[in-house]
Amino acid sequence: MYKLLKSIGKVRRGEFTTPHGVIQTPVFMNVGTLAAIKGAVSTMDLKEIKCQVELSNTYHLSLRPGDKVIEQLGGLHKFMNWDRPILTDSGGFQVFSLSNIRKIKEEGVYFNSHIDGRKIFMGPEESMQIQSNLASTIAMAFDECIPNPSPRSYVEASVERTTRWLERCKDEMNRLNSLENTINKKQMLFGINQGGIYEDIRIEHAKTISKFDLDGYAIGGLAVGETHEEMYRIIDAVVPHLPQHKPIYLMGVGLPSNILEAVSRGVDFFDCVLPARNGRHGHVFTKHGKINLFNAKYELDESPIDERCQCPTCRNYSRAYIRHLFKAKEMLALRLCVLHNLYFYNSLMEEIRDSIDGDYFEELKKEKLGMWDGRA
Amino acid sequence: MYKLLKSIGKVRRGEFTTPHGVIQTPVFMNVGTLAAIKGAVSTMDLKEIKCQVELSNTYHLSLRPGDKVIEQLGGLHKFMNWDRPILTDSGGFQVFSLSNIRKIKEEGVYFNSHIDGRKIFMGPEESMQIQSNLASTIAMAFDECIPNPSPRSYVEASVERTTRWLERCKDEMNRLNSLENTINKKQMLFGINQGGIYEDIRIEHAKTISKFDLDGYAIGGLAVGETHEEMYRIIDAVVPHLPQHKPIYLMGVGLPSNILEAVSRGVDFFDCVLPARNGRHGHVFTKHGKINLFNAKYELDESPIDERCQCPTCRNYSRAYIRHLFKAKEMLALRLCVLHNLYFYNSLMEEIRDSIDGDYFEELKKEKLGMWDGRA
Repeated sequence: MYKLLKSIGKVRRGEFTTPHGVIQTPVFMNVGTLAAIKGAVSTMDLKEIKCQVELSNTYHLSLRPGDKVIEQLGGLHKFMNWDRPILTDSGGFQVFSLSNIRKIKEEGVYFNSHIDGRKIFMGPEESMQIQSNLASTIAMAFDECIPNPSPRSYVEASVERTTRWLERCKDEMNRLNSLENTINKKQMLFGINQGGIYEDIRIEHAKTISKFDLDGYAIGGLAVGETHEEMYRIIDAVVPHLPQHKPIYLMGVGLPSNILEAVSRGVDFFDCVLPARNGRHGHVFTKHGKINLFNAKYELDESPIDERCQCPTCRNYSRAYIRHLFKAKEMLALRLCVLHNLYFYNSLMEEIRDSIDGDYFEELKKEKLGMWDGRA
Repeated sequence: MYKLLKSIGKVRRGEFTTPHGVIQTPVFMNVGTLAAIKGAVSTMDLKEIKCQVELSNTYHLSLRPGDKVIEQLGGLHKFMNWDRPILTDSGGFQVFSLSNIRKIKEEGVYFNSHIDGRKIFMGPEESMQIQSNLASTIAMAFDECIPNPSPRSYVEASVERTTRWLERCKDEMNRLNSLENTINKKQMLFGINQGGIYEDIRIEHAKTISKFDLDGYAIGGLAVGETHEEMYRIIDAVVPHLPQHKPIYLMGVGLPSNILEAVSRGVDFFDCVLPARNGRHGHVFTKHGKINLFNAKYELDESPIDERCQCPTCRNYSRAYIRHLFKAKEMLALRLCVLHNLYFYNSLMEEIRDSIDGDYFEELKKEKLGMWDGRA
């Protein structure tokens, strides 16, 4: 259940209550595709770095270790020892981004595994069944994620099918939640808005899915080829047509500036692999911008990545030490930088929430905007 | 300073006081070759897994990041944020094991870097200077580590040179410790006994180096080709001829059974890459023997690696989860298993110390011997 605590124009400060605890929004979810955060970060670490929601992947987990295995082990929460909310994405995005050969039919998608090439079928029912087996807190509807730009006629047909799929997702989720052996009988379902960069299709679709009375609504199919300006234009168009008493989730976004812009347009939930991926390459966020720890100028730098940061990395290790770890190809380098970058994102969201509470979000946005957009 | 707290026959329970704190012996040192424990384990973790002494490598650190860099950064302790004892090995073993082309002369060894092939010279003075720059708690003498078996005539000549090198090491260490800018002016020096598998050469050399009045004595050149029985025979021969009021360190050993046998022969210090390396391959130690987490039978195993283990891994994660992480090639698998295996070794040493304190070392040895010798 979403409770709006405060709003300033379109900016929302909320609380989303789930069977696994309350989420303070706006929130950034930390991505652990295969039930683990890349860079040797564990769920114990997530608690230390202010993570509220962990995000795992339906498609990846259905292949390894298999959703049936996780079900037998009591669900994802028990499997990865994480008692707070977990969101699973539906597999839709991965089916379309990882598989070259695929056939989209009314019933679902036929495609080849990115691991061993074997044929797989996934439709709305399969995605719901897998997510029910995983027993995540929030399941995502199975949709088609269309690259931008795509021809209008294709987008129209695709969005209509995504709507029909949503209906099947909702029915299947209701059925699964009512079964006796289902682990999480209160699994929530978020619908996903699509429509490429066509505002009218997006708006029409937003209105249609709003009628499904789902637990939350996502804006999908952005950050897949269009410019930032197009993305903001679509968010501007869509948000007013989604239910205002439900959380709004912008999928797979993004840079801090994207998040600030989206929050200012009414978005509550975010996720992105960017902070962890940047960290694994030695690109770390500081209060003054991104820095690249491979740079020779950090060889003798005794200061932490960020002087004011309270993350486990900055409380204990210097830039010089972490740079050495990267040069020496020590895995610890990746861990320390992923921890820092995720803490940075989680703290940025905290700052955003505080700024809404304290009525200075616009000032914060102005101050931070563009600070981390360039190359490290 | 070594204080013998208790002895039962040859078995010793001691306390070794260093400028960086007291070490309870027998002790197993945790290897962090490049100032980091492989498997994304940090010095923060070492405190959690009962590590008393961290071991780093002179040769490796002299190449990356360079001992001068570490000196400028205030020494190894500050560099890696570890305030407890650090032992650095002298580089001798690495010069002989990592470089194919080398020339041993009276002044030292000419060899090629294992990273870029460039020519390097290292002699006793260079090794001491590097270790002084690193500012470790305990420096090791620069010696020649001879593979077993080697011809008697070669071993005799080599050991004599190692003795002459020891004299130069001691002089150079004294000089360095007296310099104003030296970071650790109380750096300790351990000598190394050599002599291959020739008892008489070993004993003669032990007697000779005992006269140098060093801070401790190591038995080197074992676990390099000879059988376990030959190793025990050499330890039996050498230990009585080393000073009994100084700690005795068996270098690079080994399996739990090797450690139990060596403790029963009077050894105080150990180090080995085995627990961390095993961990990175999914081979983990339990109270009942080694297990291989890749084994299919752990797919649905909800129990921790070891039910009775209190390490961070066993307190939080199941065999099934860690097995999945290995199969999914998630780095976190390596971290969790290295943490467990090092904790296992550090706890085994604690059990050994307790058993000496409580007069039941022989019973413990009998119970544990051979338990972890086979394949996982």
